[in-house]
Amino acid sequence: MSDPDLDAFFARHIPLTRAMGIHLARYDADGLALAAPLAPNVNDKGTAFAGSLASIITLSGWSLTHLTLLDHGERANVVIARSRLEYRAPVREDILAECTRPSQAAVARLLADFRKRGKARWELEAVIRAGGITALEFRGLYVAYAAH
Amino acid sequence: MSDPDLDAFFARHIPLTRAMGIHLARYDADGLALAAPLAPNVNDKGTAFAGSLASIITLSGWSLTHLTLLDHGERANVVIARSRLEYRAPVREDILAECTRPSQAAVARLLADFRKRGKARWELEAVIRAGGITALEFRGLYVAYAAH
Repeated sequence: MSDPDLDAFFARHIPLTRAMGIHLARYDADGLALAAPLAPNVNDKGTAFAGSLASIITLSGWSLTHLTLLDHGERANVVIARSRLEYRAPVREDILAECTRPSQAAVARLLADFRKRGKARWELEAVIRAGGITALEFRGLYVAYAAH
Repeated sequence: MSDPDLDAFFARHIPLTRAMGIHLARYDADGLALAAPLAPNVNDKGTAFAGSLASIITLSGWSLTHLTLLDHGERANVVIARSRLEYRAPVREDILAECTRPSQAAVARLLADFRKRGKARWELEAVIRAGGITALEFRGLYVAYAAH
């Protein structure tokens, strides 16, 4: 799965991403961003449902981990182990979850661990900004296992 | 909104809950449980999508806060401020997110703060069990504001 295939992967394998309208907005040296329109993710206040925000930001870290390993020729099963979320402000616009690519040293460590032990973990940071401020801060620990 | 109305509230105001199939499974002295079938919340591994688990468990705490205040005649705007999630095992069955009702003292404190200051907060714990073990542990801080 290369990055243009990520949307197809979501659509085929994770039906909720269709209901949420999630798609890959950016994948580059800085990291990855997933986008979703507000309408299917709205709550009673006309702002984004916290459950939608938690869902898309969790998936942003999964996606960055998965694609980083694929970029280096490694197919992995990636799962989230732990996360912390700080909700700072409501989101009144379309949702963009931005996950920051860790340093090259962190990528090298992830790959080395994965190749040596068939298992590796790293912590990722992601944010959802809205109206020019940070609306949600996320930190998640992801674990990659060698696919059988 | 009394408890039988919670499903109608979700259906009317939070469209993603329809896509996820979320409904109230239990509301009693022990707390509250939200249920959802696995099928619309599945991932590529045939287990529950972590984003769905995060979403329903976040909503379970929102619901318990909202209904607890309503039970005492108070209509509030409830938001989540912060959460921690520990994913311990995959969920291979229909999802049940169980949020524990805090002690009577904690409920009394929430109500007193809300009535005195028009704002109150409390921390809730919730779990998703699957296959007889705890698959997801959640702790969330919720804030209730007096509705205008």
